[in-house]
Amino acid sequence: MKHIAVILCGGSGSRLWPLSRQLEPKQFHSFGGDASLLAQTVKRADQLAFLDEILIVSSSAHQHLLRAHVQPFTTKTTHYLLEPVARNTAAAIASAAHYIERHIASSSAACMIVMPSDHYMTDPLAFEKSIQTSIIGAQSGRLMTFGIKPTQPETGYGYIERGRALEEAGCYEVARFVEKPNLAKAQEMIANPDFAWNSGIFVFHTNTLLAEMQQFEPAIFESSKSSVDQGDTKHAFFTLDKASLETCPSKSIDYAVLEHSKKIAVVTMQADWSDLGSWGAVSDLASSKAGVDALHPVISIAANGNYVNARKAVAIVGLNDLIVIDTADALLIAHKDHSQSVKNVVDQLKNQLPGLVESHTKVQRPWGSYESLHQSAAHQLKYIEVEPGGQLSLQSHEHRAEHWVVVAGQATITVGDLRSDYTVGQHVYIEKKQKHRLENHTQEPVAIVEVQIGNYLGEDDIKRYDDVYGRV
Amino acid sequence: MKHIAVILCGGSGSRLWPLSRQLEPKQFHSFGGDASLLAQTVKRADQLAFLDEILIVSSSAHQHLLRAHVQPFTTKTTHYLLEPVARNTAAAIASAAHYIERHIASSSAACMIVMPSDHYMTDPLAFEKSIQTSIIGAQSGRLMTFGIKPTQPETGYGYIERGRALEEAGCYEVARFVEKPNLAKAQEMIANPDFAWNSGIFVFHTNTLLAEMQQFEPAIFESSKSSVDQGDTKHAFFTLDKASLETCPSKSIDYAVLEHSKKIAVVTMQADWSDLGSWGAVSDLASSKAGVDALHPVISIAANGNYVNARKAVAIVGLNDLIVIDTADALLIAHKDHSQSVKNVVDQLKNQLPGLVESHTKVQRPWGSYESLHQSAAHQLKYIEVEPGGQLSLQSHEHRAEHWVVVAGQATITVGDLRSDYTVGQHVYIEKKQKHRLENHTQEPVAIVEVQIGNYLGEDDIKRYDDVYGRV
Repeated sequence: MKHIAVILCGGSGSRLWPLSRQLEPKQFHSFGGDASLLAQTVKRADQLAFLDEILIVSSSAHQHLLRAHVQPFTTKTTHYLLEPVARNTAAAIASAAHYIERHIASSSAACMIVMPSDHYMTDPLAFEKSIQTSIIGAQSGRLMTFGIKPTQPETGYGYIERGRALEEAGCYEVARFVEKPNLAKAQEMIANPDFAWNSGIFVFHTNTLLAEMQQFEPAIFESSKSSVDQGDTKHAFFTLDKASLETCPSKSIDYAVLEHSKKIAVVTMQADWSDLGSWGAVSDLASSKAGVDALHPVISIAANGNYVNARKAVAIVGLNDLIVIDTADALLIAHKDHSQSVKNVVDQLKNQLPGLVESHTKVQRPWGSYESLHQSAAHQLKYIEVEPGGQLSLQSHEHRAEHWVVVAGQATITVGDLRSDYTVGQHVYIEKKQKHRLENHTQEPVAIVEVQIGNYLGEDDIKRYDDVYGRV
Repeated sequence: MKHIAVILCGGSGSRLWPLSRQLEPKQFHSFGGDASLLAQTVKRADQLAFLDEILIVSSSAHQHLLRAHVQPFTTKTTHYLLEPVARNTAAAIASAAHYIERHIASSSAACMIVMPSDHYMTDPLAFEKSIQTSIIGAQSGRLMTFGIKPTQPETGYGYIERGRALEEAGCYEVARFVEKPNLAKAQEMIANPDFAWNSGIFVFHTNTLLAEMQQFEPAIFESSKSSVDQGDTKHAFFTLDKASLETCPSKSIDYAVLEHSKKIAVVTMQADWSDLGSWGAVSDLASSKAGVDALHPVISIAANGNYVNARKAVAIVGLNDLIVIDTADALLIAHKDHSQSVKNVVDQLKNQLPGLVESHTKVQRPWGSYESLHQSAAHQLKYIEVEPGGQLSLQSHEHRAEHWVVVAGQATITVGDLRSDYTVGQHVYIEKKQKHRLENHTQEPVAIVEVQIGNYLGEDDIKRYDDVYGRV
């Protein structure tokens, strides 16, 4: 039996705007100077003694971000499954099961440990113990869900009510699932030891899951199977077939299978856990756990209980219980009691200023990142970082000339027919229409300052001739 | 009789931090995209039909800012009096009176119209009419104060109670001055037509003022006289003698003279007026007057009555009556009821992070401004603007080389022995230790992007060989 951690990395985390953006959502951020939530999840999986391999399921849009958040945190064989379109957790888990059966282990020989990539958890020993318990349940053909013993009457989580104890020690039948309750209901439930928060962690054998999926959601079963059968491997990333996935119904695993299946069971874990589903949850954690979030120094005058995430000095006067999130191009100020309404802000912005939902001013690219620092009608100033081994496409621009000054590392630069290495302080001029390319063939990051000059400076003024990331 | 507007420009405006900074205080800022408060004050003075000349009293630290805020707004002869140290309003007004008697008009031939540079006022006709009334009072040897008819029980202002009417129509004796009252007292006063806000505007003849000053504050009289006698004119700026001023007691004109003199009288004006003495006052004005402040679009969810001054998207959720002031390096969030406590923030910062009280990231210089946009241990990126006619000193650096790219206008650049004109898109490289200079001899602004490369990038690595602003 192979044990495979399936890490679901497709979330958009819009309730943690403005830090979380579509092109760099919540799971790629750290909360407190530690590794990102995804990296912490990979580490947590990697530390499970019985684990064999890791499978990351992610959006294609985040492909270039994945390695940096995964590779340093595991020594296990890691697979990357990319979704060209998002189809919720049922499709992601079914695709992962099909992929495992086709590429990793035979149908009756794989146990999936499914976990979200964007939650917070401490106590790896308690986690491992509960996973072991649920593995025994899974061996008996159960779909194991994972309950967390509640510590407060949380209205933002779903709950699981357990039924009678099963033969497998620590496993219980599921009496029912309860959706996000009101406060009175939540208070009632936490007084009852049979209720636990639904963590979104699941353990089951691939064949158990797929049989149930075929029974309750045959369309999801078929299209996810087809997305694997017709998928495509490139640069160690397996991309699911887009056309197949587009026909797939979009449902959560809970609605698609768990709420219908007779095979569900639950184990309950006692540990610090949070879904970090809102800034309120992030701030609760920051105030309860020293070191969970490293806050910038804040000047507070008649001000208490404020959560600040900013890269500059912040002064708060005469105000309590605020959430203050400051980024280069957007500032959020919310009362903690209203942190769920941040999604309404994002909805408004999607129409008015979609760029603020999509990406940060520092834009991640397959080869590194760039940030626009200053702009007028006639010029734009960019700071460009190229990761070790990264290279931009061979390209030219119709409407702008560019000055480059290397400010870190050793850059390999092509201009016209010339290709040379340039070190810190050296300057290159690229005329309009001239082919050029920036590469980093060293082990250290390269950074350049780019001064664009032209009467049109849009990102779409780019003609690509060659690109290692297939963007020609 | 010469009528001279004396505009007091020495305030530091720390309660409007973080927009107001020591090197660029309140009077140099506009509130709503209009001209700065100083420029508006100059314009208001300039429009007085009977006005002959204008005298600006300012800190030496702001010398380079003055012309741009004054010249475009007046055609009258303008004098600049610079204080090398701040000594409050009594010294500023006494120095101005001495200067006028020595350099502009004889002792009995000058009427000063003293006004703060950082207040808001509408209705220039009502203003002119009241000034004319007070000029008649001043002709009778009165020290005329200027009351504003209150519109709400303001606890942030001082009040003047008028006594019996004088022979001069519209002029009244002053019964007493009342310092900032509590709310009950303020409510009592605004119900009584004899009370008015003390606007800080004064009208008197130089000899009247100086005689009273000599009687009540001989030390201020003498040291301000000496600061003028031993002052020094350079580039059309008259700098008061520093040693003399340092010996001068620091008192407000109210404490030094007005509260003791038997010659005081008051005229009362009905007009929209505000001292903009706190963000609360600024926001009151913004909400009462369309166009007084151009606010950046704000996403508000369950949020009302918030005042936002920012150059990026701001979302406010579940919060009312906030003051939000966002600048490149500091963010203030205050409840409107606590806006007076901003001075406590500034007091804390003076110890912890004095740079945030002193200047903005965009630093004003005699020739224009610069802003640091990006920095590492090995490089710094600056955006440099040079005003028409401006020129940087001829200089060199020991520890850094510089790349310049012209991004606006036509720059005259000296590198080593070569001096040439450069247009947008052209690049210049300056080696370590090489003499260089940037000049703008056109009528349009010049802007360059500077990329500094070196192992030490401090502002103090500068050797000046020649400087039109006397900084060698």
